[in-house]
Amino acid sequence: MSTKIFDVAIVGSGPAGYSASVYASRYNLRNVVFGKLPGGTISEAHKVCNYLAFEEITGLELSDRFSSHAKNFGAEIQNKSVVDIKKVGDIFKIYTESDNIFEAKSVILATGTKRKKLAIPDEDKYIGKGVSYCATCDSNFFKEKMVAVVGGSNAATTAALLLSEVATHVYIIYRKDSLRGDQKWVEAVLQNKKIEVIYNTLVIGLKGNGKLEGITLDTEFNRGKLLKVDGLFIEIGSEPNGDLPLKLGLKTDEVGYIKTKEDQSTNIEGIWAAGDMTTNSNRFQQVVTAVSEGAIAANSVYQYLKT
Amino acid sequence: MSTKIFDVAIVGSGPAGYSASVYASRYNLRNVVFGKLPGGTISEAHKVCNYLAFEEITGLELSDRFSSHAKNFGAEIQNKSVVDIKKVGDIFKIYTESDNIFEAKSVILATGTKRKKLAIPDEDKYIGKGVSYCATCDSNFFKEKMVAVVGGSNAATTAALLLSEVATHVYIIYRKDSLRGDQKWVEAVLQNKKIEVIYNTLVIGLKGNGKLEGITLDTEFNRGKLLKVDGLFIEIGSEPNGDLPLKLGLKTDEVGYIKTKEDQSTNIEGIWAAGDMTTNSNRFQQVVTAVSEGAIAANSVYQYLKT
Repeated sequence: MSTKIFDVAIVGSGPAGYSASVYASRYNLRNVVFGKLPGGTISEAHKVCNYLAFEEITGLELSDRFSSHAKNFGAEIQNKSVVDIKKVGDIFKIYTESDNIFEAKSVILATGTKRKKLAIPDEDKYIGKGVSYCATCDSNFFKEKMVAVVGGSNAATTAALLLSEVATHVYIIYRKDSLRGDQKWVEAVLQNKKIEVIYNTLVIGLKGNGKLEGITLDTEFNRGKLLKVDGLFIEIGSEPNGDLPLKLGLKTDEVGYIKTKEDQSTNIEGIWAAGDMTTNSNRFQQVVTAVSEGAIAANSVYQYLKT
Repeated sequence: MSTKIFDVAIVGSGPAGYSASVYASRYNLRNVVFGKLPGGTISEAHKVCNYLAFEEITGLELSDRFSSHAKNFGAEIQNKSVVDIKKVGDIFKIYTESDNIFEAKSVILATGTKRKKLAIPDEDKYIGKGVSYCATCDSNFFKEKMVAVVGGSNAATTAALLLSEVATHVYIIYRKDSLRGDQKWVEAVLQNKKIEVIYNTLVIGLKGNGKLEGITLDTEFNRGKLLKVDGLFIEIGSEPNGDLPLKLGLKTDEVGYIKTKEDQSTNIEGIWAAGDMTTNSNRFQQVVTAVSEGAIAANSVYQYLKT
């Protein structure tokens, strides 16, 4: 057998991928972790307060700890995106963006989710010019500016709170009539004098001249439908990343989350999935659920390869 | 409503219980954590190397971090065992060993499991000094060492296979005349040149001077009853702690693990279960799976109490 064939290729470098790698290494499985953004989405989090053992840690620091753990335990790290995977006989061929091909006996998919877009005109045009999907990354560009956050769950409330620390005023624009998510965040938002919630309202347009100057609402607010803001943070949820599940023919639900069994197996022999992109863990999508699924997937791969 | 009624009583102070508490506190749920041994079984682990973010930490230190996290986020900690729980109307009455009675609107059971012990002299004394109950956790401490595994079912065969990848030689010592469990594991064991099975034999004693140096068998093997080993892995199964599931009438499997749905709910409304004592997480029983189940349970309780 060629030594160039990995026991398991882990596609995705977030909590699920790194956890799978740590467990795989503990089982002495030769493993490689692919991913352009070490830590994945969590690396962009301003603060993480619910990964047990850390009362408060930045997403970046937690990501660094995760990736170091995996690397020091024996993972080969490839800071590349995977563009395709093909099963040839019993071997999976992993194609990266840079045209490298890797071979592995099994695959754990853990590429996470990406933020949903509003799908309004010029949305892409204004990215980086007022429109953002990551308050942690971009809040500091809006010091003493007017900003709006679209959404009503944890992502939106936490983004608004973070922005309130730098911005002059923060609108939350939400299509429903009450905020949801963690009650602590909701209370903090409602008690924050810089934050104003506009309920039962949609953002339907973007105005500006090179950079964002305002947004159009579908209902009147303060006698007008145009709201002057310098920044718009779109925090309306997420969906699985990439088209690998589709290309591979993996069974998903209607949104695209990979259907996984209790052992994180998929409908294709030799492919497991873990983390936010699966239907498991009651779809709770937390760092701790991703880490758990990664561990379970690695254990399943180990059992599969040894028998 | 009396302020003395907790939103949720968390019974068990291991990773699942503390994680449930941290999430409950984030949801502003008034919660109490009961448990005599902060950290539970993991507090007794010599080293923990697979809780993502910590390459190596003592079980005690990790437990301390877990309990501090829960405490500082608002948990009331009661270092007491719970001896009974009764549902009276919509309220659960929690009876502790010291005759205190607490009241809560919901319960998360997370009292974990106990490993079955051999019950031979000095067994406890050598834990972490050669005696282990978890090959996944501890195999890497026995690189190029001689080890023995006690047991004959899946836990024992998989432990032996894992150990064979690092140890010089692995004995399996089993009281019956053939291995049981998955035939694939049995075949893999029998084909493995590093593994030697000693049938119809019991381990009756431990020898060493501070750390384990050998074990005593009840029958002769290679003309002696003393077998030189550096490690002894006792893999004769585990079972849920305590009799609360039975007293409460919770549905369990034949061994006593609480049957839980994906949201960690049980057959009794108002009672959730999390961690090693449940049938979830593919029964993998790791710190990370317990932490994940605790978080999911707290989220479910939050949704239940809000609606």
